[in-house]
Amino acid sequence: MGTLIGAVEAGGTKMVCAVGTGPDDLRDEVRFPTASPAESLTRVIDYFTTWQREHDEQIGAIGYGTFGPCDPNPASPTYGWVTTTPKPGWTDVDVVGRLRAGLEVPIGFDTDVNGAALGEHLWGAASDVDSMVYITIGTGIGAGLIVEGRILHGLIHPEAGHVYVRHDLATDPFAGSCPYHRDCLEGLASGPAIGARWGSPAGELGPDHPAWDLEAHYLALECANLVCTLSPERIVLGGGVMEQLHLFPRIRRETQQLLNGYIQAPAILTDIDSFIVPPGLGNRAGVAGCVALGQQALAAAG
Amino acid sequence: MGTLIGAVEAGGTKMVCAVGTGPDDLRDEVRFPTASPAESLTRVIDYFTTWQREHDEQIGAIGYGTFGPCDPNPASPTYGWVTTTPKPGWTDVDVVGRLRAGLEVPIGFDTDVNGAALGEHLWGAASDVDSMVYITIGTGIGAGLIVEGRILHGLIHPEAGHVYVRHDLATDPFAGSCPYHRDCLEGLASGPAIGARWGSPAGELGPDHPAWDLEAHYLALECANLVCTLSPERIVLGGGVMEQLHLFPRIRRETQQLLNGYIQAPAILTDIDSFIVPPGLGNRAGVAGCVALGQQALAAAG
Repeated sequence: MGTLIGAVEAGGTKMVCAVGTGPDDLRDEVRFPTASPAESLTRVIDYFTTWQREHDEQIGAIGYGTFGPCDPNPASPTYGWVTTTPKPGWTDVDVVGRLRAGLEVPIGFDTDVNGAALGEHLWGAASDVDSMVYITIGTGIGAGLIVEGRILHGLIHPEAGHVYVRHDLATDPFAGSCPYHRDCLEGLASGPAIGARWGSPAGELGPDHPAWDLEAHYLALECANLVCTLSPERIVLGGGVMEQLHLFPRIRRETQQLLNGYIQAPAILTDIDSFIVPPGLGNRAGVAGCVALGQQALAAAG
Repeated sequence: MGTLIGAVEAGGTKMVCAVGTGPDDLRDEVRFPTASPAESLTRVIDYFTTWQREHDEQIGAIGYGTFGPCDPNPASPTYGWVTTTPKPGWTDVDVVGRLRAGLEVPIGFDTDVNGAALGEHLWGAASDVDSMVYITIGTGIGAGLIVEGRILHGLIHPEAGHVYVRHDLATDPFAGSCPYHRDCLEGLASGPAIGARWGSPAGELGPDHPAWDLEAHYLALECANLVCTLSPERIVLGGGVMEQLHLFPRIRRETQQLLNGYIQAPAILTDIDSFIVPPGLGNRAGVAGCVALGQQALAAAG
């Protein structure tokens, strides 16, 4: 069974806490709106403290997957901080420091999408490959990358929702909604961008609405560019927007058209249905990923 | 000193063969135009065979860096092949098989840009970091990526010259020159693309020509997107086009403008002069990288 992990998926709008050992053993879960750091992190600590007392079981580590940007580099003086987030009140918050003060266990800390990527790699739709990308398309757009079985970090961590994509103002005059970059991918294709462009929440647009062909176009541009840049063995697309499953065939077809036969791999040319896929863990990808982050921290702590 | 390596930098227009142990010990070098596979590879084999006889010294391994796409996966049935290249006569050519038939030593085989990236990581402008990107901008555009000290491969290998970038037809009506993708980065910003757009070879355009602001714009888009996608600790820009050193400050400035403070790392915000840099090995990056590929093959062969 393995050690019990406390998982925290800290999203921009809600936080999910769970206790478990993996995607098929999530024993308890609680959700609450993301409030101030003080209020939210106190609530996280209280939840795990109470759970341990009530169940008379110990949690061995915490895995915390956060909205970004954050500092996931253990060698950095600001390790464990949420840094330049536009989310009010959360700029430069020492999350790991606050959690450590209340829960004396190893804490794994990374972006929520890096956690989800790790979860999908360990237990989900990419467990049979060594390199993959997980992209979430929802309130924001984020990506987690696994290279040779390990989360890619580099300088900070990927922020692949903020790439600039081809934007033809003649066919899509929407200026973009990203406060930093206006018409980056997130500014053109996130849930709020869809809502702002069409004047109606994305979830209320029918599958025949022209919004979805345009959405598939932008996401296909990102998939094609990722294939060229990172050469992943699989691309997993999750998040609220991708619950519109009719997007998958459109994205696959246009990714092939954009690459135009240049990347001669069966995964692209003939097997794209199993190359661009939904999360194998469904909506558990995020929480399960945080369990995986906790397991990593436990292993690293020896 | 280490074992002598035979290096082959196989470019689309010329091939460079050298013998040495590293960038500061390249003992001999010969260049010839890239002809048919039979002619070119026979010439490579003859060069090394003759060199060994004349110098009464043995070469311990070959490092072969090729134009792409190619198959660098040792587990693949087409390992060591140049695959879907548009270069006439070179489609599906078993390079490693032909070399092995003539030179009975371990052969390291990868893209020329992966080799150059490895060389820059071992001995050049990125020897102090673990993750970096080397981009060559010349006849084509290619990128090699180092992640945690190792060449990134994945599904095949990166082909980051073929990403689609923002292309504003109002300011740049040039349709693009890539036979596969038209206005991908290579189609907009390679040497031939510059020549086709302005009707004059890139090398003959003065530093005040408007070509260079546009060129810097496209390369800055690529740098900004790479920062968001891969989070490298350094970006090295080489190749013939980058011999126009006045491009560097323009690319750095526009990369900062495009990222607009979102990536809060000193490397981007204040130290960008040492983040986007020319190759530390200068024009030896390619050949030295092939020496590094040979050394890897030798180490792998035990």
